[in-house]
Amino acid sequence: MKIAILGIGTWGSALAITLRKNNHILSLWTYSKEEEAELKKTREPKNLPGTSFAEDIEITSSLDKALKDKEMVIFAVPSLFTRSVAEQVKDYIQKEQILLTVSKGIEEKTLLAMSQILEEIFPENPVAVLSGPSHAEEVSRFLPTTIVCAAKEESCAKTIQKTFQSDSFRVYINKDVLGVEIGAALKNVIALAAGIADGLGYGDNTKAALITRGIAEIARLGQAMGGHLETFAGLSGIGDLIVTCASKHSRNRKAGFLIGEGLSYEEAMKEVGQVVEGVYAAKAALALGAKYGVDLPIVHEVNRVLFEGKNPKQAVMDLMLRDSRAESPGVSFP
Amino acid sequence: MKIAILGIGTWGSALAITLRKNNHILSLWTYSKEEEAELKKTREPKNLPGTSFAEDIEITSSLDKALKDKEMVIFAVPSLFTRSVAEQVKDYIQKEQILLTVSKGIEEKTLLAMSQILEEIFPENPVAVLSGPSHAEEVSRFLPTTIVCAAKEESCAKTIQKTFQSDSFRVYINKDVLGVEIGAALKNVIALAAGIADGLGYGDNTKAALITRGIAEIARLGQAMGGHLETFAGLSGIGDLIVTCASKHSRNRKAGFLIGEGLSYEEAMKEVGQVVEGVYAAKAALALGAKYGVDLPIVHEVNRVLFEGKNPKQAVMDLMLRDSRAESPGVSFP
Repeated sequence: MKIAILGIGTWGSALAITLRKNNHILSLWTYSKEEEAELKKTREPKNLPGTSFAEDIEITSSLDKALKDKEMVIFAVPSLFTRSVAEQVKDYIQKEQILLTVSKGIEEKTLLAMSQILEEIFPENPVAVLSGPSHAEEVSRFLPTTIVCAAKEESCAKTIQKTFQSDSFRVYINKDVLGVEIGAALKNVIALAAGIADGLGYGDNTKAALITRGIAEIARLGQAMGGHLETFAGLSGIGDLIVTCASKHSRNRKAGFLIGEGLSYEEAMKEVGQVVEGVYAAKAALALGAKYGVDLPIVHEVNRVLFEGKNPKQAVMDLMLRDSRAESPGVSFP
Repeated sequence: MKIAILGIGTWGSALAITLRKNNHILSLWTYSKEEEAELKKTREPKNLPGTSFAEDIEITSSLDKALKDKEMVIFAVPSLFTRSVAEQVKDYIQKEQILLTVSKGIEEKTLLAMSQILEEIFPENPVAVLSGPSHAEEVSRFLPTTIVCAAKEESCAKTIQKTFQSDSFRVYINKDVLGVEIGAALKNVIALAAGIADGLGYGDNTKAALITRGIAEIARLGQAMGGHLETFAGLSGIGDLIVTCASKHSRNRKAGFLIGEGLSYEEAMKEVGQVVEGVYAAKAALALGAKYGVDLPIVHEVNRVLFEGKNPKQAVMDLMLRDSRAESPGVSFP
């Protein structure tokens, strides 16, 4: 298959290596002529030591070259830029091309997920998302990885499944596009909470509680928006969250840890030195909770700690001492 | 409330400390006169450094003393001994006493869960279970912990919730008794699989895949038996599994690690030096899968590695290369 990848960051590069293993024909696009020249020279993907781009992978800053005659176009730019890049490529896209987004996030102004932005701009194209517990570095080393492809049309999901599947990359299909994206975008709020608990010196019990009850409230929100519980209990929900919370490298966990130790979120972000998505996701989750009328106690406390200077220890106490309740609506007493 | 705890192991002791914090009146029973004498002298719980039994906690090897006038009786003996201890105390139990089991396991011969054994022997008593992500050592230090109490009768669940609840121990109630017990008993098979992946040198992606897809198949089995998906996605399911797989101390994870490195399960058990519940749970899960007609690919591969000498790397490969499929029945295409 002929495939274009827009964005040559770490994740886009790891997916390029994965697809090249399956003998697909690839064009990688970057907006930056400098990056294009550098990558053409070195052929070394960012942050993926020990790997290189095969010579037959095209690297280009020309949209015409990148997108011409491609059957699939992968949006691998940071979620903040998905809309602007989509607008930029609009005239090059044909309506039979499959559009696949692999970025995680909710657009702040519109509260739209990435697939919804693509559907808005390309109403005639098949649109899909790919998400799951998948550190790019491990994917690029062909360590066994599982992932979910969600699409509204089965044929689109199955095409993507077949395109990516290998002995190191197993793809499950799912029709719940929004559920996959909501879980992926909001899990970082919970990763922040788990990091905060670690920073407070609490143990594995507290962290597991925040992870499990955290995904439960994201799932309640997602179900109110039309998603399915199974999706949140699956690879793109709890699975991805487990990887994030286990990782020493996760920016979100680390920022949470520093906040638990007493830093403000601005100080923590400065120390981490990179964008901490969970901070934006916390705002988005709160706004979505209000819009859909869903109670999100952990999300609320994370927002209070981040933006109202609430003591994190007090936030955990307040969560512990809320009214007694049933674990979940489906298993509560009549 | 007046409460008896049968078994003064690590978990029973941690629960005694938790209940004493809430000012309950406690009798702890051990079958061993030696242990009774030792504990009366030292008042030091097993494996819970820095803690001690308050002077007003009764320690006894007399069932009459332990059980007389108690409103709740907690079965905290290893699951292997739950039936024999239940038979032993039969004549001392009154039908209004709440019976609470805190042990995890499936009886090998009957495939019954602990609550089912108690219901068989005490058909007139209210029976409940307590389970969740709760390292005893952290509970005894009053680190924030959440847990699930499941019972068929709401009043029984609420009584237990009220009895245990504090600012460091939050209890959720759940009517799905069997779901809670199946998750708790079978999670160690998945912990073994996750340990095997670590021992093979695989990364966080593989481990998260085994954890997430593992609990998904335990949930499919549990639902076929009458349990609820929410329970497996909750504290006693994925929550407890997260704690087990994160813990450096987990016997199951460690045994899996050694098997991944090439040891047989007998060698691994010898090296770990303790009972590895996952080995028995793997057999029980397989038997339950056959009984209820549920396909359990990860459980099957764990059994092949444990009991048929299958190469663990090959087992992971075979899981990766199974037929393509949807993530979960509820989100598959029509």
